[in-house]
Amino acid sequence: MHLTSQDLTAIERIKKLNIVNAISGIRPANLIGTKGREGTNLAIFNSVTHIGSSPPLLGIVLRPKDEVPRHTYENIISSGYYTINHVHKSFSIQAHYTSAKFESDVSEFTSCGLSEEYLFGFEAPFVKESRVKLGMRFVEEIPIKLNNTMLIIGEIMHLTIPDGIMDDEGQLDLEEAGSTGVSGLNTYYQISKAHKLPYARTHQVPHFRNT
Amino acid sequence: MHLTSQDLTAIERIKKLNIVNAISGIRPANLIGTKGREGTNLAIFNSVTHIGSSPPLLGIVLRPKDEVPRHTYENIISSGYYTINHVHKSFSIQAHYTSAKFESDVSEFTSCGLSEEYLFGFEAPFVKESRVKLGMRFVEEIPIKLNNTMLIIGEIMHLTIPDGIMDDEGQLDLEEAGSTGVSGLNTYYQISKAHKLPYARTHQVPHFRNT
Repeated sequence: MHLTSQDLTAIERIKKLNIVNAISGIRPANLIGTKGREGTNLAIFNSVTHIGSSPPLLGIVLRPKDEVPRHTYENIISSGYYTINHVHKSFSIQAHYTSAKFESDVSEFTSCGLSEEYLFGFEAPFVKESRVKLGMRFVEEIPIKLNNTMLIIGEIMHLTIPDGIMDDEGQLDLEEAGSTGVSGLNTYYQISKAHKLPYARTHQVPHFRNT
Repeated sequence: MHLTSQDLTAIERIKKLNIVNAISGIRPANLIGTKGREGTNLAIFNSVTHIGSSPPLLGIVLRPKDEVPRHTYENIISSGYYTINHVHKSFSIQAHYTSAKFESDVSEFTSCGLSEEYLFGFEAPFVKESRVKLGMRFVEEIPIKLNNTMLIIGEIMHLTIPDGIMDDEGQLDLEEAGSTGVSGLNTYYQISKAHKLPYARTHQVPHFRNT
């Protein structure tokens, strides 16, 4: 199947949304926890991405004016803090329903059967059910004017994971952690390790033959 | 295990790189194909992310001054075109070795046993072995001054996938496509479907009980 940009433009909005949201491949399923004037908020995001390791920075792409992530955006900006929590298969259905458009005074924690947890004196709520959790400090918002989205950049202030899922080199075993991926807006995937490869050095490249 | 930002700062560079590159969860494994004055270039990236569906925009975070992605960056800016190709398990080892620091006149296609393919009159090279391929037009580069990286945004001009892996709603089956994920810099994961859930509407939220 081949689609050109003209074909894509002509496709009905929801179908196009599904196609474009899935086409870049698997994305991480994360819950973002925040606190604002109207209470706590929890929202699922598939756009958390790595920006750099020194300082340890992660980004999220969000649309400030959309209904769903609006509270997340406002709470991040007003409080300066948020949490990123991996979604596991055991609660991916609960996590998915945080994307419903609840009233602003309703906490998705309560509505979706997930538990607030406060750790390390950090002011934003963590998700108790998650095994890999990050406490983030908001650092910068970078507008993407092309489509009125924002890249929100934060620094990792706290990181907590169960013992035994990170090796001595700092490599996290996401299969062992039970972390899930998401494709498009509503298909959740389990992940299992295929290969762990060495750092690629030119003089160690195997002799591949073109197929 | 709990690490604070101070703990992270004190960790040795490579270990910190491993930790921070993996901590946001699973990321898509993609090969980016470009063409420049010195020939073709192919590089593995785990930072392709969704920016918006209308117009269909994807972003990549890259470091213009690093050794490895430099040719990719230069070729994208100078030619205005690039391809994004999903990595499958059958060639993830080859794909991984494109990250070795080859000389600028060496094409990673040849060195890593992957095949250039030219489709639809598009000028950047696709990866023949890949089943999900995008032809991208460079649109904008947004500097992230915090750590001297760039968000490169492109529009999908061509999209090609095998028949039968996208349903009528435009949902792509990444398990069927055989697309892989990556965690950190060198651990590759296979993915398998866990749940396909409906669009989350407030009046259809199941009655969850807090755990």
